[in-house]
Amino acid sequence: MRTRPLKVALLGCGVVGSEVARIMTTHADDLAARIGAPVELAGVAVRRPSKVREGIDPALVTTDATALVKRGDIDVVVEVIGGIEPARTLITTAFEHGASVVSANKALLAQDGAALHAAAGQHGKDLYYEAAVAGAIPLIRPLRESLAGDKVNRVLGIVNGTTNFILDKMDSTGAGYQEALDEATALGYAEADPTADVEGFDAAAKAAILAGIAFHTRVRLDDVYREGMTEVTAADFRSATEMGCTIKLLAICERARDGASVTARVHPAMIPLSHPLASVRGAYNAVFVESDAAGQLMFYGPGAGGSPTASAVLGDLVAVCRNRLNGTTGPGESAYADLTVSSMGEVVTRYHISLDVADKPGVLAQVATVFAEHGVSIDTVRQQGKDGEASLVVVTHRASDASLTGTVEALRKLDTVRGVASIMRVEGE
Amino acid sequence: MRTRPLKVALLGCGVVGSEVARIMTTHADDLAARIGAPVELAGVAVRRPSKVREGIDPALVTTDATALVKRGDIDVVVEVIGGIEPARTLITTAFEHGASVVSANKALLAQDGAALHAAAGQHGKDLYYEAAVAGAIPLIRPLRESLAGDKVNRVLGIVNGTTNFILDKMDSTGAGYQEALDEATALGYAEADPTADVEGFDAAAKAAILAGIAFHTRVRLDDVYREGMTEVTAADFRSATEMGCTIKLLAICERARDGASVTARVHPAMIPLSHPLASVRGAYNAVFVESDAAGQLMFYGPGAGGSPTASAVLGDLVAVCRNRLNGTTGPGESAYADLTVSSMGEVVTRYHISLDVADKPGVLAQVATVFAEHGVSIDTVRQQGKDGEASLVVVTHRASDASLTGTVEALRKLDTVRGVASIMRVEGE
Repeated sequence: MRTRPLKVALLGCGVVGSEVARIMTTHADDLAARIGAPVELAGVAVRRPSKVREGIDPALVTTDATALVKRGDIDVVVEVIGGIEPARTLITTAFEHGASVVSANKALLAQDGAALHAAAGQHGKDLYYEAAVAGAIPLIRPLRESLAGDKVNRVLGIVNGTTNFILDKMDSTGAGYQEALDEATALGYAEADPTADVEGFDAAAKAAILAGIAFHTRVRLDDVYREGMTEVTAADFRSATEMGCTIKLLAICERARDGASVTARVHPAMIPLSHPLASVRGAYNAVFVESDAAGQLMFYGPGAGGSPTASAVLGDLVAVCRNRLNGTTGPGESAYADLTVSSMGEVVTRYHISLDVADKPGVLAQVATVFAEHGVSIDTVRQQGKDGEASLVVVTHRASDASLTGTVEALRKLDTVRGVASIMRVEGE
Repeated sequence: MRTRPLKVALLGCGVVGSEVARIMTTHADDLAARIGAPVELAGVAVRRPSKVREGIDPALVTTDATALVKRGDIDVVVEVIGGIEPARTLITTAFEHGASVVSANKALLAQDGAALHAAAGQHGKDLYYEAAVAGAIPLIRPLRESLAGDKVNRVLGIVNGTTNFILDKMDSTGAGYQEALDEATALGYAEADPTADVEGFDAAAKAAILAGIAFHTRVRLDDVYREGMTEVTAADFRSATEMGCTIKLLAICERARDGASVTARVHPAMIPLSHPLASVRGAYNAVFVESDAAGQLMFYGPGAGGSPTASAVLGDLVAVCRNRLNGTTGPGESAYADLTVSSMGEVVTRYHISLDVADKPGVLAQVATVFAEHGVSIDTVRQQGKDGEASLVVVTHRASDASLTGTVEALRKLDTVRGVASIMRVEGE
């Protein structure tokens, strides 16, 4: 084994960073044996240097992250700051100064992955980011390497633990959205400002990353259709139960049936209780992958948290260090397929639509005509009358999102339709 | 991209091999783009050359596998013959003649993995075998690479599709073992001679491979305790149901709580219905991995079949070809931890024991005394009397297998114990 250690600079020492530093110390012998050389924590860039960090030599702590990545003797920079800047500049500076990079930064990778990969490639360095998607669950590596000889057609997953916790709570207790969110906040599963999670921004970033890798095509964050889960109601869950379904916030990356284009989207959806994703509880994540040869695979585990994320970071660190010792790099960006990324209108799926309608004869015929005129075929209809008002629940066959949108616009114009109570996609069948 | 192709020799052209050849042809452009050079099927060694093989140039077919691997211009040998010989000699010959190897051969890897890894290392070549365990499910790569920075404590999995199909059928229909086996055979899930599957030999080979990788320790096939599932009865399933459990044939690789030793075993076991492995249906496989930092991960998918296995083989092929172009090799055997592999007696778990006893006062006291004398603490007891006979179902707390064995021997000597109807371990709690 080489005795000269590989030097690691840690950018950020919060929940994830402190766990990375801890494991680097406690598991130093194992890491050295697995890499073939010891790894040494050479510096830790933080915002608040005065904070006591147990187990970290205060002499390593600096507030000057730029100087740290510019030192020139750093082998690997571990970036766990998050956000776009200064992370982006620090990562490119690291490449320029000879370091490879391990990052957990989904927002940055989703927004600027192509440029960062280009910078890594230009300098012959590695950029690894298993921790950016679904925490500890090995997902990037299986998609990028294990399935490298296969053709992935769909990635369907629960990639945000906060929203899964909230939806699971609503499902199991009948609580409304706000009540379940309050509990998630109290238990530390949701942040004080939960926007990134509940509005689907976090999941959309992960969907962009997953779609890019799965389809060997650049998928920008803007390409991902995004709909949060704040409008999901207890009534929606009752409807889902009647259909033998539950509701999950899903990230769905799909190849069109003709193979020529792909889509990526994040939205709440009903899925059958028999689907493996339906039983993913609490803050867990799970991702279903469908490919030509392998068929259906599922990857399940904790999607967030300091330790799980640190596990993913350290797995990447070992790989990057091994590559460095071998004088090589791992697989970089693979975007050769360059497929068209279609908009949401092209997505084809099924829909569950609840309408508030007048309780009088002929309404169903009117509604059914609107569906037919827009080429949306109806699977089932259920009518419930109450006090002169009635609700009509329509479940469609597969139709394009554009056709469904046209249908709903036309429905809203009918005198007999008082309102569209909810529209929910039905997936995983 | 390099234009000179990498040459692949395929040993075996059965269900898996023909699928590997087919995908190499139909996905040639994708494979070339992902590898960075085209791959060419340079030869196919078969036993029956006269058989028509659609899509394979007859000029490539040979019965002389040895001459094929000795050609000297082969970059990668794909071995999908199975069995010990001639596969072992062909693989070592391939290394000697400059080729790297992708194998799907669990029996060979479990028996001679160390020697094969040594041969690969000696010649600076790769030995990859993702397809040897759990078909298409990425498992070797996640354990060996994604979790390289973590400490794996347990691998608990359903790694044999045939037995899972049979047990699932028994569970869902109340059928007995023979009836369920007959159905599995009729549907092609079980071979004419099902011994390797139902007696746990296949799962034991996979357990040895998984334990070796998970614990960075050589685990020989002989180190794996093995108990088949032919004795599992419909009555066992009724008992399991009463406990809120089902029965699965599990491969379990565990680190002892003191961290100094490991065990590997294959046997039927009760697991709670709430455990994710309980809902693995039909011929699917799933493996649960528990580690210090990542927590609980699960990997699920088709565990066998031509296409899924070919997917795993081709993923390895892409990786090995990339390594070759980069003039490097991937991670080899990692056995540095060299932990003690303990025997079954050291395994600590819970037990479900059904006894046929005389229906008279004092029997429970006698039985309970035997458990106490052997240091096995009882969790619950259920007595059922019928026609002068009674059954006693005891569920224990955690105890060593050695203590349990001693207890059962002593129970058999009691006059009041007519027989030990079944002993089943309880896992996954």
